[in-house]
Amino acid sequence: MDNYFLDELTIENETKIVLLVMDGLGGLRIPGKSGTELQEAHTPNLDQLAKESVCGLLDPIWPGVTPGSGPAHFSLFGYNAFEYNLGRGVLDAAGIGFKFTDRDVAARINFATIDENGNLVDRRAGRLPTEENQRLCEKIKKNISVPSGIEFFIEPTKEYRSVIILRGEGLSGQVADTDPQKIGVPPLDPIALSPEAERTAAIFKDLLKQIRDILADEPRGNMLLLRGVDKYKHIPSMEKRFKLRSYAIANYPMYRGVAQMVGMVLHPITPDIPSQFKAFQDTFQQYDYFFIHIKYTDSRGEDGDFDAKVKVIEEVDQQIPRLVEMNPEVLMVTADHSTPALLKSHSWHPVPVLLHASTARVDEVDKFDEISCIRGGLGRQPTLNLMGLALAHALRLKKLGA
Amino acid sequence: MDNYFLDELTIENETKIVLLVMDGLGGLRIPGKSGTELQEAHTPNLDQLAKESVCGLLDPIWPGVTPGSGPAHFSLFGYNAFEYNLGRGVLDAAGIGFKFTDRDVAARINFATIDENGNLVDRRAGRLPTEENQRLCEKIKKNISVPSGIEFFIEPTKEYRSVIILRGEGLSGQVADTDPQKIGVPPLDPIALSPEAERTAAIFKDLLKQIRDILADEPRGNMLLLRGVDKYKHIPSMEKRFKLRSYAIANYPMYRGVAQMVGMVLHPITPDIPSQFKAFQDTFQQYDYFFIHIKYTDSRGEDGDFDAKVKVIEEVDQQIPRLVEMNPEVLMVTADHSTPALLKSHSWHPVPVLLHASTARVDEVDKFDEISCIRGGLGRQPTLNLMGLALAHALRLKKLGA
Repeated sequence: MDNYFLDELTIENETKIVLLVMDGLGGLRIPGKSGTELQEAHTPNLDQLAKESVCGLLDPIWPGVTPGSGPAHFSLFGYNAFEYNLGRGVLDAAGIGFKFTDRDVAARINFATIDENGNLVDRRAGRLPTEENQRLCEKIKKNISVPSGIEFFIEPTKEYRSVIILRGEGLSGQVADTDPQKIGVPPLDPIALSPEAERTAAIFKDLLKQIRDILADEPRGNMLLLRGVDKYKHIPSMEKRFKLRSYAIANYPMYRGVAQMVGMVLHPITPDIPSQFKAFQDTFQQYDYFFIHIKYTDSRGEDGDFDAKVKVIEEVDQQIPRLVEMNPEVLMVTADHSTPALLKSHSWHPVPVLLHASTARVDEVDKFDEISCIRGGLGRQPTLNLMGLALAHALRLKKLGA
Repeated sequence: MDNYFLDELTIENETKIVLLVMDGLGGLRIPGKSGTELQEAHTPNLDQLAKESVCGLLDPIWPGVTPGSGPAHFSLFGYNAFEYNLGRGVLDAAGIGFKFTDRDVAARINFATIDENGNLVDRRAGRLPTEENQRLCEKIKKNISVPSGIEFFIEPTKEYRSVIILRGEGLSGQVADTDPQKIGVPPLDPIALSPEAERTAAIFKDLLKQIRDILADEPRGNMLLLRGVDKYKHIPSMEKRFKLRSYAIANYPMYRGVAQMVGMVLHPITPDIPSQFKAFQDTFQQYDYFFIHIKYTDSRGEDGDFDAKVKVIEEVDQQIPRLVEMNPEVLMVTADHSTPALLKSHSWHPVPVLLHASTARVDEVDKFDEISCIRGGLGRQPTLNLMGLALAHALRLKKLGA
């Protein structure tokens, strides 16, 4: 079910909505522990908030589906993830503020190192620092020769990651990754995944050959791997759809990218978790909707480090009073998806959610965790519903029909 | 998701289904109370019934969406509210038994009073009594001159409310309300909301001008305000879709209108709540499906009167044995939507539901209220699902597939 009916019902109001996303928060019990990461964490502030909220469980996309970060965040913002399942290239480029046109195709690229036989020896070029990345991008720009009718952009994002954007008529995003996902073999060719993409794939192939020559004398980062090629697609902004002037306090390109794609203003990158919450307080008067993104719950889950993930959760819990004291009309805490340390990866398990508002029907949940929230008044529903619930509790939706 | 698959699965049976709707039943806790209106009410009969039923929470339309009474009731009867979101004009006219054709456009009208400058001084003409309304409608009928090719009907519904129906080829329902929603200003013009509606709007404009002249000498009710203009749309009856001969015991035009639109037979208007339940007992042998509509839970919610709403709930509770003693195979109690006294308006919060049947899988819910029902076996689901559940528990649906 789509949710475009919301757009018709949305009205202006002065109320504020805050969404705190603890990336990959949902977890699983591991042997030797008596609960999930969130159950094991000491979270007096989140528990108190849960007591005064309506709680529940959200399925990021659909029961059983493990989402990437892009689709999961589109859902959180009220955008159907199947419709807006954009490639990483587009999202990363948006995250550094690249101004797209409708004729653009973007690829995320990793600088990699190959040996004299053309085989990969390091798929991340020794985690090349960002400054080196910048230098290599400039070198490529200066020396590359671009086919007629095409514009070429290459921009660093972070560490060994950059983006390439091709602009021109009739380009396609249906081009395969060239990362073979292992070393000791050469990069793959950029294969066309559909007949319309033959020309685009040929252009990428030519450019990659040139780039290999341009970077031939580099000791590391002498090759590029393409990933997540996709065509840009315009997305109606949150202001247009939901009448929300929205603000993102997020530090990683991917999340900044999704936020930018739905029209959020991006806060400058901040050094740590407490400074994200300070940024929220400092900008609270200026926007209607705040997206605060905490990355490290997910990172420690991906590391498989249960205890470190617990510690991140506890660090965030200490910041909760800084949200509460600003008295937003709607305050939500949830996750984009689960990243159980047990699995060392994203998973399909639903995530807990709390929604705090004076208009909420408070339930009996008295602890914020995956098990307690089962008894919550929101029940279990798709993450895509969250935006409608937020708007409703903020008195920003009019009645449907007579 | 549509539910037309139900139509294919429906079979005949002798079983009876009863739906008691306590309008706007869902509530919210207010300061100084320890629960919602329903939690605070003393409801031994509903609680006993809940104990022997399967319970749950229903979202009238979609999580976060606040429904008008029309869409909410269509959902209860198994009709998709987005498809059947008909204007108030059509519903009110149906409610007084007006026989529509496919060429009809209906508007709800309020008699209003304007001063010598044409500015509104009373948008409800001092809540004109129904008899006065009838007299004014007759006066208009006698004196109005209708454009060639158009038939004109004006019929009183209740107090200061009437309906106008225009019949003719090519008419459109896309005409704006003329009620400016405040006094001290003149009524708005009936604006066309789409190019196809230009002619219909012009006809309404001409008729309103004539009506103003016809009513010029009236001390109150010397003008009309148009609201909820819409084109009639045929709706397949409950008998056709679900093989249910259905009966409505409802006293307000709106609800009688929706019931009439889905093919229910209407019981004559009754003076009070107990007489509605007596009407049910008297007609029990003659129909398959009974819709009993209690208005006052909603009215007291709209008034913001928590305690008065509690009292209405308790009054209804005392009538519950009259439903139970008839032994219908399926007995359901729920609401069309929430009307918390706290908000003094309809809201998006889900409503409790109980379904009593010998075929029900009874859960652990032992009290009928919004919080207890969270633990119910029906979980939380859209109201649109209720008709399928009723038919199933009444053994009126066959198996899907082999």
